[in-house]
Amino acid sequence: MSHELSVVGKRRPRLHSGDMATGAAKYTTDIKLPGMLIGKVLRSPYPHAKILKIDKSKAEMIPGVEAVISFEDGLKKPFNMSMQDLMSPDPDRAGLRRDQYVFNKKARFFGDTIAAVAAINEGLAEEALELIEVEYEKLPAVFDPVEAMKPDAPRIHDFAEDNIGWHVVFPGSKGDVGKGFQEADYIVEGTFRTSQQKHCQMEPSACVASFDNLGRLTVWSPAQDPSFDRAKVAYIFDIPGGMVRWLSPHVGGGFGNGSSVRAEPICIALARKTGKPVKLEYTREEEFVATETRHQFVQFVKMGVKKDGTITALQAILTVNTGAYISRSIAVATVTMGSIVGLYRCPNAVAEADIVYTNAPPSGAFRGYGNPQAMWVLEQLVDMACEKIGMDPMEFRLKNHKQAGEPGMLPWLPIESCALDECIKIGAERIGWKEKRGQKSDGVKRRGVGMAIMRHVSGAPTVNLEHANAFIKLNEDGSANLIVSVCDMGQDPLGALAQIAAEELGLRAEDIHVTSGDTDVSMFDCGQHASRTAYVTGNAVQRAAAEAKQQLLERAAKMLKVSADELEVKLGQVYVRAAPEKGISVAEVTRDAIYNFKGECLNISGKCSWEPKQSPPPFEAVFTKVEVDTETGEVKIIRMVVVHDIGRAINPMTVEGQLEGGIVQGIGYCLSEDFVINKETGVVESDNFTTYKIPSILDVPDIEVILVEEPTPSGPFGAKSVGESSLIAIAPAIANAIYDAVGVRITDLPITSEKVLSELKVKKGN
Amino acid sequence: MSHELSVVGKRRPRLHSGDMATGAAKYTTDIKLPGMLIGKVLRSPYPHAKILKIDKSKAEMIPGVEAVISFEDGLKKPFNMSMQDLMSPDPDRAGLRRDQYVFNKKARFFGDTIAAVAAINEGLAEEALELIEVEYEKLPAVFDPVEAMKPDAPRIHDFAEDNIGWHVVFPGSKGDVGKGFQEADYIVEGTFRTSQQKHCQMEPSACVASFDNLGRLTVWSPAQDPSFDRAKVAYIFDIPGGMVRWLSPHVGGGFGNGSSVRAEPICIALARKTGKPVKLEYTREEEFVATETRHQFVQFVKMGVKKDGTITALQAILTVNTGAYISRSIAVATVTMGSIVGLYRCPNAVAEADIVYTNAPPSGAFRGYGNPQAMWVLEQLVDMACEKIGMDPMEFRLKNHKQAGEPGMLPWLPIESCALDECIKIGAERIGWKEKRGQKSDGVKRRGVGMAIMRHVSGAPTVNLEHANAFIKLNEDGSANLIVSVCDMGQDPLGALAQIAAEELGLRAEDIHVTSGDTDVSMFDCGQHASRTAYVTGNAVQRAAAEAKQQLLERAAKMLKVSADELEVKLGQVYVRAAPEKGISVAEVTRDAIYNFKGECLNISGKCSWEPKQSPPPFEAVFTKVEVDTETGEVKIIRMVVVHDIGRAINPMTVEGQLEGGIVQGIGYCLSEDFVINKETGVVESDNFTTYKIPSILDVPDIEVILVEEPTPSGPFGAKSVGESSLIAIAPAIANAIYDAVGVRITDLPITSEKVLSELKVKKGN
Repeated sequence: MSHELSVVGKRRPRLHSGDMATGAAKYTTDIKLPGMLIGKVLRSPYPHAKILKIDKSKAEMIPGVEAVISFEDGLKKPFNMSMQDLMSPDPDRAGLRRDQYVFNKKARFFGDTIAAVAAINEGLAEEALELIEVEYEKLPAVFDPVEAMKPDAPRIHDFAEDNIGWHVVFPGSKGDVGKGFQEADYIVEGTFRTSQQKHCQMEPSACVASFDNLGRLTVWSPAQDPSFDRAKVAYIFDIPGGMVRWLSPHVGGGFGNGSSVRAEPICIALARKTGKPVKLEYTREEEFVATETRHQFVQFVKMGVKKDGTITALQAILTVNTGAYISRSIAVATVTMGSIVGLYRCPNAVAEADIVYTNAPPSGAFRGYGNPQAMWVLEQLVDMACEKIGMDPMEFRLKNHKQAGEPGMLPWLPIESCALDECIKIGAERIGWKEKRGQKSDGVKRRGVGMAIMRHVSGAPTVNLEHANAFIKLNEDGSANLIVSVCDMGQDPLGALAQIAAEELGLRAEDIHVTSGDTDVSMFDCGQHASRTAYVTGNAVQRAAAEAKQQLLERAAKMLKVSADELEVKLGQVYVRAAPEKGISVAEVTRDAIYNFKGECLNISGKCSWEPKQSPPPFEAVFTKVEVDTETGEVKIIRMVVVHDIGRAINPMTVEGQLEGGIVQGIGYCLSEDFVINKETGVVESDNFTTYKIPSILDVPDIEVILVEEPTPSGPFGAKSVGESSLIAIAPAIANAIYDAVGVRITDLPITSEKVLSELKVKKGN
Repeated sequence: MSHELSVVGKRRPRLHSGDMATGAAKYTTDIKLPGMLIGKVLRSPYPHAKILKIDKSKAEMIPGVEAVISFEDGLKKPFNMSMQDLMSPDPDRAGLRRDQYVFNKKARFFGDTIAAVAAINEGLAEEALELIEVEYEKLPAVFDPVEAMKPDAPRIHDFAEDNIGWHVVFPGSKGDVGKGFQEADYIVEGTFRTSQQKHCQMEPSACVASFDNLGRLTVWSPAQDPSFDRAKVAYIFDIPGGMVRWLSPHVGGGFGNGSSVRAEPICIALARKTGKPVKLEYTREEEFVATETRHQFVQFVKMGVKKDGTITALQAILTVNTGAYISRSIAVATVTMGSIVGLYRCPNAVAEADIVYTNAPPSGAFRGYGNPQAMWVLEQLVDMACEKIGMDPMEFRLKNHKQAGEPGMLPWLPIESCALDECIKIGAERIGWKEKRGQKSDGVKRRGVGMAIMRHVSGAPTVNLEHANAFIKLNEDGSANLIVSVCDMGQDPLGALAQIAAEELGLRAEDIHVTSGDTDVSMFDCGQHASRTAYVTGNAVQRAAAEAKQQLLERAAKMLKVSADELEVKLGQVYVRAAPEKGISVAEVTRDAIYNFKGECLNISGKCSWEPKQSPPPFEAVFTKVEVDTETGEVKIIRMVVVHDIGRAINPMTVEGQLEGGIVQGIGYCLSEDFVINKETGVVESDNFTTYKIPSILDVPDIEVILVEEPTPSGPFGAKSVGESSLIAIAPAIANAIYDAVGVRITDLPITSEKVLSELKVKKGN
């Protein structure tokens, strides 16, 4: 890629930021259709209960209430709320069980959907909810996955003995760990717990659904994967996919929460029953109790090392809390296991997981997708091992992490590129690793530094369907419309795709007008997950643009009376490479092509279907400096340095934004965010931003984000991914820094002051 | 085209008719944006006046009035309201003068735009209009084009001497008419007048305009030519075309009225000034006084014939009332001249036209586009000539009209196909021509039969830009989305395009979901005029579908382990031609292509840019039986038989609908529709449906519509056009029938009872 870049790599505010800042941007909540009804959901007040009887008659009698639906009214087709079954060649063999219903006849968690109403306004809808009489038979409930596996635990699904939904052996397991541990000089091990982090995206789940006179369904929703979403509701409602038009208005964040259907099937059921448009919006409280969380894991992990820092064996046994339904837990657990087993060289490495049903809300996709749980254990184990052998954890990581060409997370997919060494070295330099590490002080407030690394994915070929499409057409003013399926849930993927298209076509970024989020006009795309868009869809966009560029150059060549291969196009100008003064603007060429009076009309355009053979992993090194108050247990992050192996930053401004956002979300995950279920009642007690603490601006430390750009061969202009990365290794870096500061290690997320103080007391007691 | 058709040729209700019937269809008036203002227009109360002063201060002081705009506020760039300048290679040489302004400093007709306001509601906007104080200097006005050419007529535009805007000599003029007339046995001639028919489409002009924070403009409007409309407002407002997104909601009729910009520039100017969305809707009265009419022509025509019916010479001298602005009058007059000169064989044929400014509202595009005026004179001349030589006018027409292979309206474009002989013969048979003609009775109510023929176009290559594009993509359920630019103003073009795509792709018509009317996602298309869509865009659609079909067959071939050329696809099923039991559904193929887990993902799709080299003319024979009340002069249409040479009816139901609608509009043109300007005040007195009489259902006679289908080689499945045809020859057929009934010939449209009675008196007096 010797080509000098004109657009890619340039800083540019995210698309539509002006509309968002001024309130002009339209979200699902802004959609108003004539005659539209308002939907509301009746949710279970018990974490586990049989429904003996539902009497809807009183609710149905209220004038203005147009539908009351529960299990009896149909929709008896079970489904899996995630898109994972659609992405998998054989969902049944992969354990992607269809274990839930739009309306349930048994409640399996506090907030499970029992019934829904549609009425002419919200007040009547709420009144109707109160008049639905449900007779429940309460059942004992269990919330902890380890407890749930015990023989006397309440059975949540009839088919799942010991509440085990699936047992997964990591397919990349290898070697003989028994032998490996024998060869080790030291063994470190531990049991670590993680928490049910909530996405807390600004826009709660919402949907507007409307059927037309031909039975065609239009859905507006902030879902992340429009092509899959369309297929998912087509499946649930037994209608052909082409009879569904899925529209994505502006999306107020996702972080994976929009990777499963949420309000949509309920809303569509109401629209179908009433024959009228229906809007259903979740409250923040519903969002907390009724949509998915990050998976809670209980992980036993064990590592064998030699004195020289060689890893001899690695073992992970995972107990995964999938909550009431299995959703995509198998895939998430596989990522966790692959991340534990695959980051470092180790000849004997095995992992397995039990996916366990509990009466917690279901767990699902969340930024990092199992990898934060993996690094939480692996990166602490590394520090524990280094302490045993007296090795600098930075040196240990430099020695052991895999390099380009070595097998990746999935052994059959080699690592395409790796700039992690540089990331580690730069980060260490910036935090002052050598000087500041191990400077245990004696004061009340003690400082320490810690580090962690991570590797993530750019899409997930060979395990997930990876298919992206793009269509681009040039206008007479030399601008282009790019039509893709992906929506923008905050990472500015459309801005990045515009820059890729502009670079390839030789236009300015502002010349690319992007249309997205309408399944009627965009071709298929797997959507917004697995940090795939810039890489996978980006490649499709670049190739579609290349097709259009070829047409552009051929037309220009004819007009300039040269051959196309003598030409270059940059920033809206086509010119002869050897004589740059000889040229013509793109607008002149496109105008001549569209408004052609010589019998040679052409609307220059390009299209591409693309799927990757690679998933070039972005790497990252996280360094942090913390201060622990030994009297209160309070942990304060002083500084955070994140160095990211991006391949190529299409737009450094938004890449940095992604990294900064991920760091803050990672700090919340590590220190403050705690999803609390009352063990007696099953009630989710942390159901708003007062009881569930996400970091505020005052909690944000001094952050330094550094990009290392070594273009990856298969990336569009060398780009790898960034969307999920920077959250992943924050928690273990902080945990390691706390250990460096005060010598205690918290293995159970979040690291609250109480836990730190308690461990400090234990340590003092020793 | 030996292929047996499965979809094309099948009767099918027009697309979205259910939504239209139930009120679910959204028109521009239904668009409501947050913070949207309402626009209103201040129009000149005088047909000709200088504006000495405008005081807007009082209007501007009303709270809630957000903008008051007149000429001084900018927009001093002159433009041509039609799209004709965009369609022409050299608009200046073609006389497509830019002679008007969005806001004028001189009023040239009653209703000319002087100023506009935007306010938070309609009431305030109207109040503000009343408070704008304009000081006018009234000028003498002229409304008749012949009067306007006189030396002492008031000058309307400084540059136009004798108010002549342009002088057009028909480029296909040929031979020596002097010699031709000498060779004739008989000469017939006359001066004929036509009227300023109004389109009376159900939806008056309307627009919603909104700028986003990046200065990008979105326009909702029922305009007919979205790609050109976008370019037109880009020109007026000096913004790049790609910065405009033009959306067509449902369109409530056009008939050519939407071929010029109307409310749009005014609405956009208000949106730009206020920075807020603005809606501007014309009232029916504004629609009558301020939008274009059909051109009033005064035509002197002369024909020389030999006794055997050979035409020796044909001459037409046209005086064209263009009204206050020139718009597309040159193009319309050219069509008139070409139609007069080009329908019959004649070695010496010349035509010329003066385009004359008057203080009437501007004239513009209207179904038939000059051809109704042409047939009005030509088809009466033919009957006059036949009377002289004693020849059956049907035989005369059969003898003289041009056949396939002969030069068409434009001599350089030969006629691709012609089934007019069959049309004439069938029509004559159905009306009972031989028996009923010339049966002059003596009663008070006398009946007669008359006929006329016509030839029109399927697009206008070589004179207009003709460029269409289509994009089609297949979904996993075996359905397809077709994306085109054309809007549906009533003729169901989208239904026809869907049938073309379905036939080519081997799907069912209902499997094609059509997206149109969004310039951001559709490629360029010249729009809805010149009866071009089924033929020009239809060809692009067929070719795009063919590309997709090829991909489909190749995938299916691999799945069935045969070669692609052994396969056929029909109604959603791919099968081996020689063994039809061996097959696979389209859905199976598309699902395997999109959800492919073998590394061969493809979203099957096709695209095509197309422009015609032909304009295969549809021909039509009109036969009518009328009854004339000799005491009142009232003319009653008893029966109307229209036989149309369609090539291939893509959807016979909508083709018949087009023909029936055109017949009724033609009857209105002939008998009742009269656009009355008060010669003293310039006020348009026929500004609603009480004073301007369009036919009601009670005025509709017994109509028989017959389609002759001889596929034309270059048409999609052989189709030619139908949209404008059937209005064109109605008036002369009726005039000829009146002559057959009572022996009087009215040369001045409309044929009111008063005119008939007056001529009957003259005749009786002789």
